[in-house]
Amino acid sequence: MRGVVMHAPGDVRVEQRDDPKIVAPTDAVIRLSATCICGSDLWPFRGVDAIDEPLPMGHEYVGVVEEVGDEVRGVRPGQFVIGSFVASDNTCELCRAGYQSACVQRTFMNTSCAQAEFMRVPLADGTLVATPEMPADDLVPSFLAASDVLGTGWFGAVAAQAGPGRTVAVVGDGAVGLLAVLAARQLGADRVIAMSRHEPRQKLALEYGATDIVTTRGDEGVAEIKELTGGLGAHSVVEAVGTQESMMQAIRSTRPGGHVGYVGVAHDVELPGEELFFSHVHLHGGPAPVREYLPHLIDLIWNRRIDPGKVFDLELPLDQAPEGYRAMDERRAIKTLLRP
Amino acid sequence: MRGVVMHAPGDVRVEQRDDPKIVAPTDAVIRLSATCICGSDLWPFRGVDAIDEPLPMGHEYVGVVEEVGDEVRGVRPGQFVIGSFVASDNTCELCRAGYQSACVQRTFMNTSCAQAEFMRVPLADGTLVATPEMPADDLVPSFLAASDVLGTGWFGAVAAQAGPGRTVAVVGDGAVGLLAVLAARQLGADRVIAMSRHEPRQKLALEYGATDIVTTRGDEGVAEIKELTGGLGAHSVVEAVGTQESMMQAIRSTRPGGHVGYVGVAHDVELPGEELFFSHVHLHGGPAPVREYLPHLIDLIWNRRIDPGKVFDLELPLDQAPEGYRAMDERRAIKTLLRP
Repeated sequence: MRGVVMHAPGDVRVEQRDDPKIVAPTDAVIRLSATCICGSDLWPFRGVDAIDEPLPMGHEYVGVVEEVGDEVRGVRPGQFVIGSFVASDNTCELCRAGYQSACVQRTFMNTSCAQAEFMRVPLADGTLVATPEMPADDLVPSFLAASDVLGTGWFGAVAAQAGPGRTVAVVGDGAVGLLAVLAARQLGADRVIAMSRHEPRQKLALEYGATDIVTTRGDEGVAEIKELTGGLGAHSVVEAVGTQESMMQAIRSTRPGGHVGYVGVAHDVELPGEELFFSHVHLHGGPAPVREYLPHLIDLIWNRRIDPGKVFDLELPLDQAPEGYRAMDERRAIKTLLRP
Repeated sequence: MRGVVMHAPGDVRVEQRDDPKIVAPTDAVIRLSATCICGSDLWPFRGVDAIDEPLPMGHEYVGVVEEVGDEVRGVRPGQFVIGSFVASDNTCELCRAGYQSACVQRTFMNTSCAQAEFMRVPLADGTLVATPEMPADDLVPSFLAASDVLGTGWFGAVAAQAGPGRTVAVVGDGAVGLLAVLAARQLGADRVIAMSRHEPRQKLALEYGATDIVTTRGDEGVAEIKELTGGLGAHSVVEAVGTQESMMQAIRSTRPGGHVGYVGVAHDVELPGEELFFSHVHLHGGPAPVREYLPHLIDLIWNRRIDPGKVFDLELPLDQAPEGYRAMDERRAIKTLLRP
């Protein structure tokens, strides 16, 4: 089969790889209907994360079950399924507490190369959720978004305790940030402030329910958020970037007693203890337990109540994956969908 | 009047100072029944915090109202009152949200010299809470504890979401840590693990409801907490020290999805963003909103349901304050009560 492999920063290739096989009796193999490039794939592409050996890429996936191992009971060949970027058993104590991304058996799927024609999914019963029937083709991008960016934005909004009576600010206008805007509104937030300097992203943020746009960042952005919130800061702030600047912007934009939900993968971030102490904020985040939200998200998408697939503003055949990486790296595209 | 002033690390003196007066119409002046030395007073005593000019000391206080300003309605001369180490109006949006220690009008009381015969309390209506009647003398130490260390330990336990069904670990065996043990049990925690290497403190922790004592610290301490919690870590961890080691010990002792409540004033702490991200913990803390808990804590003490005053294992007249500092510095005493 064909699959995407990164050899060095900027060097992404589509290559022939072995077809995946059932290894454990809890595995499934799926034929991908669509996959995509993640903002986090840009870290190694830009040389921020080291690449020690050729790296099979991709951890977001939707597709049709081809084959299942002997112990798989929850899904069967022919079903359209969505899974999270973390495989989980969905039965351990941490899964039952809603932290499937910390499952005692967790496997990060970036070892599975979802940017390919087929992939093996471990712990299929705990990881995959099937749609009621085969979905219409125009819903596929939205289901694909649920696999990571929607679930991650949703977790960011939940961790920030977005809800009725609350003003939410979102730091970061990538796909996760935009979908955190959508999530905050779905969770009932009164007011959602999107921080973005890019017009197409501002437009999508407004479509997703943003009530205000703030175009400044850093200290200036913090000052503007405070001005919009009676001098106190937002109740809830979602951080969806992962840099020192964006984390501090999120913490400083939050009122005392408010909540920061951070879902941007932290890179070279050091939080100053004393400032954090006196900030009085709640801090929570990490790799999103997407599996926890999948049934609800699938329901919202199946019934066309949300349209998270709009974050894909570039669609390419798998063979053109290198161009997809470049488009995202150069911010010509928010997110690239790949069709195997 | 006499009051305690710190001139340099290790150099604490009892001096004649001006009697405090009503300055604003919202002020009260109280005659102190008892005051004490705080663990945080040891930071400048040990030279960790700089002393730029002679520092009037003390921020924990109980006493009898002497005089009130024209606008004070909630307390009157002759009442026995307890206040927090932060003066607050108790009416602003942050106070109403339970964060009186972040009140828009807050004043930290360490500018007021509570280690003295008299002190001025700003925002008296918002800050002071009176007991039903003049308390028995043996209750005075417990009410004094409510002014800071009990309220702080309580906030740590609340921030760590101590409660039924949860295992709580407490890092730090000073007065705040010991009272966090008491708070965790009062809040209904099933199991409370006190981390302490000092026998008298272990004994008090057990009296306050600790179910387990862990004598190791650092990585070893973390391993022991995990062993006691099915390999997962505690649901709730209270951090009551404020150093890099204790913060990391607290974070690493907490299970994914669990809660760290940190109330030790952070000194030279830098939290590594990536480790925090993958830890999946909730982090919350800061200067405790003691005022929020005072009515409940006063009720518990008045009815002799808790005995937080036991953390005072040394009682001295105010004039011997220097010896009180030395005893705490040398860990001969957990906490020193001073009688003016």
